Amino acid sequence: MAHGSGGEESYKLIEEVFYNNFNNEELLQQNDSTIVDEIKGKIAITTDSFVIDPIFFPGGDIGKLSVCGTINDLAVSGAKPLYITAAFIIEEGFQIESLKKIVKSMADTAKEAGVKIVAGDTKVVEKGRGDKIYINTTGIGEFTKERYELNMKNIRIGDKIILSGTMGDHGMCIMNEREKLDIESSIKSDCATLNTLTADIMSVSKEIKIMRDPTRGGVAGTLNELVNSGGKSMMIYEKDLPINEEVTSFCEILGIDPLYVANEGKLICIVSSCDAEKIINVIRSHSLGMDAEIIGEVVTGQRKALYIKTELGAMKILPMPQGELLPRIC
Amino acid sequence: MAHGSGGEESYKLIEEVFYNNFNNEELLQQNDSTIVDEIKGKIAITTDSFVIDPIFFPGGDIGKLSVCGTINDLAVSGAKPLYITAAFIIEEGFQIESLKKIVKSMADTAKEAGVKIVAGDTKVVEKGRGDKIYINTTGIGEFTKERYELNMKNIRIGDKIILSGTMGDHGMCIMNEREKLDIESSIKSDCATLNTLTADIMSVSKEIKIMRDPTRGGVAGTLNELVNSGGKSMMIYEKDLPINEEVTSFCEILGIDPLYVANEGKLICIVSSCDAEKIINVIRSHSLGMDAEIIGEVVTGQRKALYIKTELGAMKILPMPQGELLPRIC
Repeated sequence: MAHGSGGEESYKLIEEVFYNNFNNEELLQQNDSTIVDEIKGKIAITTDSFVIDPIFFPGGDIGKLSVCGTINDLAVSGAKPLYITAAFIIEEGFQIESLKKIVKSMADTAKEAGVKIVAGDTKVVEKGRGDKIYINTTGIGEFTKERYELNMKNIRIGDKIILSGTMGDHGMCIMNEREKLDIESSIKSDCATLNTLTADIMSVSKEIKIMRDPTRGGVAGTLNELVNSGGKSMMIYEKDLPINEEVTSFCEILGIDPLYVANEGKLICIVSSCDAEKIINVIRSHSLGMDAEIIGEVVTGQRKALYIKTELGAMKILPMPQGELLPRIC
Repeated sequence: MAHGSGGEESYKLIEEVFYNNFNNEELLQQNDSTIVDEIKGKIAITTDSFVIDPIFFPGGDIGKLSVCGTINDLAVSGAKPLYITAAFIIEEGFQIESLKKIVKSMADTAKEAGVKIVAGDTKVVEKGRGDKIYINTTGIGEFTKERYELNMKNIRIGDKIILSGTMGDHGMCIMNEREKLDIESSIKSDCATLNTLTADIMSVSKEIKIMRDPTRGGVAGTLNELVNSGGKSMMIYEKDLPINEEVTSFCEILGIDPLYVANEGKLICIVSSCDAEKIINVIRSHSLGMDAEIIGEVVTGQRKALYIKTELGAMKILPMPQGELLPRIC
């Protein structure tokens, strides 16, 4: 508890664990606020708390996830991610070694993505008032000249829906780990930063209407939100949905629809049909987009909804996800 | 749990509780990131998680505190607070009515301070994996032309230390509430936003070296941090320390030194002696600074430390706070 009380012990923890890893001149100002240079152009802001269980999993950990998640929220808005803040709520008794591993993983992910972790906070709560560690990251991004703001009001009938890769890897990986299903599998979380991918496609086309990362609620949850807010129906084609074989069979065993399962390194974008081929080629040439597919399009629906055409040719409505899905997936 | 899973129930919660209260065009963009206009000049960034127990207390609640705390961190850096993000970690079973009260209190506090809550996030964790509600707020502020950056390297021997009001009100209020001491008292948390106070004093003097809000660790903790990072010794005078009578006697009963007790609406500033009178007069004319005092000065110490001259004339070192102090005070 003393590590979180703002005294000598907090000071040492911050020096040893945080300053050692998040080593940049901004953070080392060591003030209540960090001062950064003027940002030219509009600014994107996003916040997310991460409460994933378990905190270490194949493909990542809560630290990597917390940096990827916030970078991705900035990236899909069209902005270039610049700065991240990191705030920790740590349960009493949590191992310093695990904390160091998580913090290093955050530092590595941020560095790779070219983003600086500029401010932080640590609180400690009593045993049984938390669960090992929760992390909040808040991100700030800039709209440089070559970027443009995306707006779902620009979505038109005939626009294509692109998904950058396979569905459900993160969610099924976490479920396997957490529920100790012990299904032998090589499923790994797809946890990754999307900012270079979004930069690539924005540099070749001005015809991107909206980008999203389909996390909680999966592809069907994300598209439903866009149908609701954008006001246009969408149709996806089951035959075109990219998915790993292992995820498919895992979902079948458990009776889960992978369309509703969380992803942490996938991009959905809705683009003009005229630029769709160009954009998908750019996505496929990126290491995170090799399995990208055009999975559907914006349609005139009898009733405003997200539709799926199954492999057998039937048409169904995919509703907004309801109920518990997979709690604490991120 | 369903309220936190990113499906239909999450959507409704966000609409009903958050959009209703945090009603501004930025937040209502309803995107993964919020886009705000260009900010001219340097930018201040700060983050803080609030895990206070109890969540409602005389003088405020966790919602008000979370907005004040972050606004104050921006304000004492010299910046004008502009935007705040709010992320909630809610324990399963927490009453929606309490959540609404807290959110309203955040909205009211932000509005009064002229700050917009522009982005948010909600996670729900199982019973026993949290404690009612934890809130992270991250703040962004601007350095407008009339503002200037503060730097503890500018601190000189002879500079005066000003405290804007009585010490220890927040900490003793929380301790009384939490430990069910049932000491009849009118002690209220001093939880307040300091941004108009800091703006006032920055507009009359360019001789402010550093500002701080003495939260965790209290006045002695904050000054010790400044001694450590700034490299100059400081001396405070017991006779000049503003404190409420009730807090004094409460501290005496419990054997606690009020110099180490948290405040949530107090300002410490270190200023050139030439401008000290002018600055303290401005502070005293502000509703939050009526009890302001010059409590000490920067001195040449034999050993780099924070010293106190007691009312009886003895000189003691006030060490950095150690151990648990009051856990979860903010």
